[in-house]
Amino acid sequence: MDLKRVVEETDTPAGRRFDNIVLALVVVSIATFSLETLPDLPPAAAALLWWVEVATVALFTIEYLLRVAVADHPWRFVRSFFGVIDLLAILPFYLSLGAVDLRSLRVFRLLRLLRLLKLARYSRVVRRLRCATLIALEELVLFLPVALILIFLAAVGVYHFEHERQPEAFASIFHSLWWAVVTLTTVGYGDVYPVTLGGRTFTFFVLLIGLGLVAVPTGLFASALVQAREEQEREEEESRAGAERTAATGQRRPE
Amino acid sequence: MDLKRVVEETDTPAGRRFDNIVLALVVVSIATFSLETLPDLPPAAAALLWWVEVATVALFTIEYLLRVAVADHPWRFVRSFFGVIDLLAILPFYLSLGAVDLRSLRVFRLLRLLRLLKLARYSRVVRRLRCATLIALEELVLFLPVALILIFLAAVGVYHFEHERQPEAFASIFHSLWWAVVTLTTVGYGDVYPVTLGGRTFTFFVLLIGLGLVAVPTGLFASALVQAREEQEREEEESRAGAERTAATGQRRPE
Amino acid sequence: MDLKRVVEETDTPAGRRFDNIVLALVVVSIATFSLETLPDLPPAAAALLWWVEVATVALFTIEYLLRVAVADHPWRFVRSFFGVIDLLAILPFYLSLGAVDLRSLRVFRLLRLLRLLKLARYSRVVRRLRCATLIALEELVLFLPVALILIFLAAVGVYHFEHERQPEAFASIFHSLWWAVVTLTTVGYGDVYPVTLGGRTFTFFVLLIGLGLVAVPTGLFASALVQAREEQEREEEESRAGAERTAATGQRRPE
Amino acid sequence: MDLKRVVEETDTPAGRRFDNIVLALVVVSIATFSLETLPDLPPAAAALLWWVEVATVALFTIEYLLRVAVADHPWRFVRSFFGVIDLLAILPFYLSLGAVDLRSLRVFRLLRLLRLLKLARYSRVVRRLRCATLIALEELVLFLPVALILIFLAAVGVYHFEHERQPEAFASIFHSLWWAVVTLTTVGYGDVYPVTLGGRTFTFFVLLIGLGLVAVPTGLFASALVQAREEQEREEEESRAGAERTAATGQRRPE
Repeated sequence: MDLKRVVEETDTPAGRRFDNIVLALVVVSIATFSLETLPDLPPAAAALLWWVEVATVALFTIEYLLRVAVADHPWRFVRSFFGVIDLLAILPFYLSLGAVDLRSLRVFRLLRLLRLLKLARYSRVVRRLRCATLIALEELVLFLPVALILIFLAAVGVYHFEHERQPEAFASIFHSLWWAVVTLTTVGYGDVYPVTLGGRTFTFFVLLIGLGLVAVPTGLFASALVQAREEQEREEEESRAGAERTAATGQRRPE
Repeated sequence: MDLKRVVEETDTPAGRRFDNIVLALVVVSIATFSLETLPDLPPAAAALLWWVEVATVALFTIEYLLRVAVADHPWRFVRSFFGVIDLLAILPFYLSLGAVDLRSLRVFRLLRLLRLLKLARYSRVVRRLRCATLIALEELVLFLPVALILIFLAAVGVYHFEHERQPEAFASIFHSLWWAVVTLTTVGYGDVYPVTLGGRTFTFFVLLIGLGLVAVPTGLFASALVQAREEQEREEEESRAGAERTAATGQRRPE
Repeated sequence: MDLKRVVEETDTPAGRRFDNIVLALVVVSIATFSLETLPDLPPAAAALLWWVEVATVALFTIEYLLRVAVADHPWRFVRSFFGVIDLLAILPFYLSLGAVDLRSLRVFRLLRLLRLLKLARYSRVVRRLRCATLIALEELVLFLPVALILIFLAAVGVYHFEHERQPEAFASIFHSLWWAVVTLTTVGYGDVYPVTLGGRTFTFFVLLIGLGLVAVPTGLFASALVQAREEQEREEEESRAGAERTAATGQRRPE
Repeated sequence: MDLKRVVEETDTPAGRRFDNIVLALVVVSIATFSLETLPDLPPAAAALLWWVEVATVALFTIEYLLRVAVADHPWRFVRSFFGVIDLLAILPFYLSLGAVDLRSLRVFRLLRLLRLLKLARYSRVVRRLRCATLIALEELVLFLPVALILIFLAAVGVYHFEHERQPEAFASIFHSLWWAVVTLTTVGYGDVYPVTLGGRTFTFFVLLIGLGLVAVPTGLFASALVQAREEQEREEEESRAGAERTAATGQRRPE
């Protein structure tokens, strides 16, 4: 019962300390993962990183087993979003232990990134983000296809104008799509760009029309977040007002 | 009568299935069109794409004839926006069948892209987009000339500063216009950029003043969309409230 | 009296026709000015452009004299904003006629661009823009120094990190300022960029903090414009309501 | 008592003149600092800059001592934010006087930049900025980790796709982080960019999802500033209304 409180609750001193330790471990394991990819790493550092890796995986495994043990419905936890993430955060390590060719297993390492999602468990950030996403979803559903159509049309247009002059850079519509994405998001690496008069004039109009459409989702999400914040504040105010009213009348209502 | 329902209505199971099939065909035909432009395509793949092309065009032709057949006013449908688009989506294929030099016909292939606009028929996306466009139109009319004047002035200024040092990149005001567009939309490919002290100082002030003006249409369109959404929600609420009121009083008003 | 109406008023058919002709002339003269800068222009085209230039300047001169002639206070018009612009739009031509070395006069050609500002006279675009600018001015005054300080601090920081590795690209703080402007406005030409670990880490934090600050003026101007539009609409509604009230009570109030 | 008024108050003619002189000195010293970094500076100019430097430091020292002298609680001023900044603005100069190797001291020169923060003392810009920052803080706390997670995931993804093809540009996750920051802020220098099909497709989705998240803080800060402005206006209106009410009733309330 006491262990359950430490592992699952976040508003007791012990629970908060437990969460902070796990959070620190997540950050350490991400740093380890990143440092391992550095080229020309001295063997001593590589060995150290390996042991840090082993230690964090061991601790994550203990944490996972604890969470399963204290859960009211262990099986439901295992199948929950964070249960799956917690498992995926440690599974690749055990799989790679028995492997011979480490190269082919590299793709599994990507899964270790899912540890990052553990960060999302801490604080009410996730709740507000989810609320804002729900608000913005309808408009995003509205804009995504329009933006995609625009990107496709831009790619076909520039392919038509530039293919003959730059058969390498604009080899096909798929190559042109890369240009369209890089241009309409205003990243503009400069690896591909139109050089013909037609291509440049076309780009001019694409940018005039397109920038607005592609950039709009940003504005939609921002306004949704502001709305989500207002709603959350109103809710909290109401629940606070409710609590005060309850306190004033001297009776406690069931929540 | 039954066929008419399948082809034209979207809120019956059969009608929805018909629409989904057409939508899938549009996506397939766009994918085919894109894949055909890939260089070094093996002959077998090219042949397959050709037959997929023939099949989609055949099905689009049947669909077009069906729509004409079931329309209350066939001629009015043919002249309508989507009637013209549906025709343009299949016509280039038949024109290219009788052609000898395929190269010169390549420009017609662009028209096949109009199939994409078929995507716009499905869902109330178009209506809301049109409403937002109407709201934003007045401001866009306000900003487009200002943005264009600014782009032109930026081009002339940089031409003045950079022409002598970079006679190739800033050969004329039209070449400088390309720089101005790429810079003020913050794409910044890096193919042309000022190198003189005067040109860079000028760019500094152009960016300080110009970014705001060129980026504003984005904000206007976003706010217009939010407004359009609110209006649509209010309308739907009112019509729902009206329906409830009607149901409550037990009498049906003519719509 | 009749000529005055044609030249100065914009709500009579004749006045509107006069304005449209002047507007067309402005566009023609801008096109001429741009085309003249094209390299390798055939002599025939150059000669044609010269005659178009002579014709537009002649017509602008007639227009300027007409405006002076019909003005109630000719001297006040000459000193007004548009009076000065109208004069500057034609003066460079006459000055260059008597010149021997055309090169040194090229700088005066820039003044011909002021013809563009004539475009601003047509429509109520200018009034709304001025209103929005007044609303946004206080915030822009707030943000401009903050943005400039940030750009300067970014330049000094990157100079400190990159000067030794790239003594050419980051030769001084002024060279680094160019990098800071191009980076913080997200143009990113790619002509200068940090390569050291310190410089890149510094850029990381500059972008995290800086993008917001530098991009904010855009949002401020957009919101000011929306506000200006609402105020203009309210004013127009009130004046319309006032006119209706006046009409209803059957008496005309002095404006 | 009189000197105190000149140094500390800003609403008397003498105080305003004192502040303007200090402000001008700050600008002069920043210009000096920037000019000193110019390469190939003639000795005469370097000497002149040195004497300007000595003069500004001397004047700043006098100003600092004056501020300490007139302060009600000298020790509290020395420990205050602006007291520390004022000291740091002059200290590096005296430290470098006794130094032998100027190179190693260059890092201290960066501290001289803190003089810039003196600019922040003048006007109510700081107060509004602080208010807006407080409003925006909650959302920024919400978004910063999300943006950082996204940047990290983008870096790992592109490292996975591009490491084998471009072992130099994407040497480790830290190198990829540089790419992720430059791409997701849409700066896009063009020094590193994906070239494989997988890397480009991944970038496509990262940009679609990521641009919104990374760009949102801008919108949050802008909306917070608008809110801060409204609150400031309301406060000023209320205090003005209060003053009027007080004047009307003829009695002065304690503030």
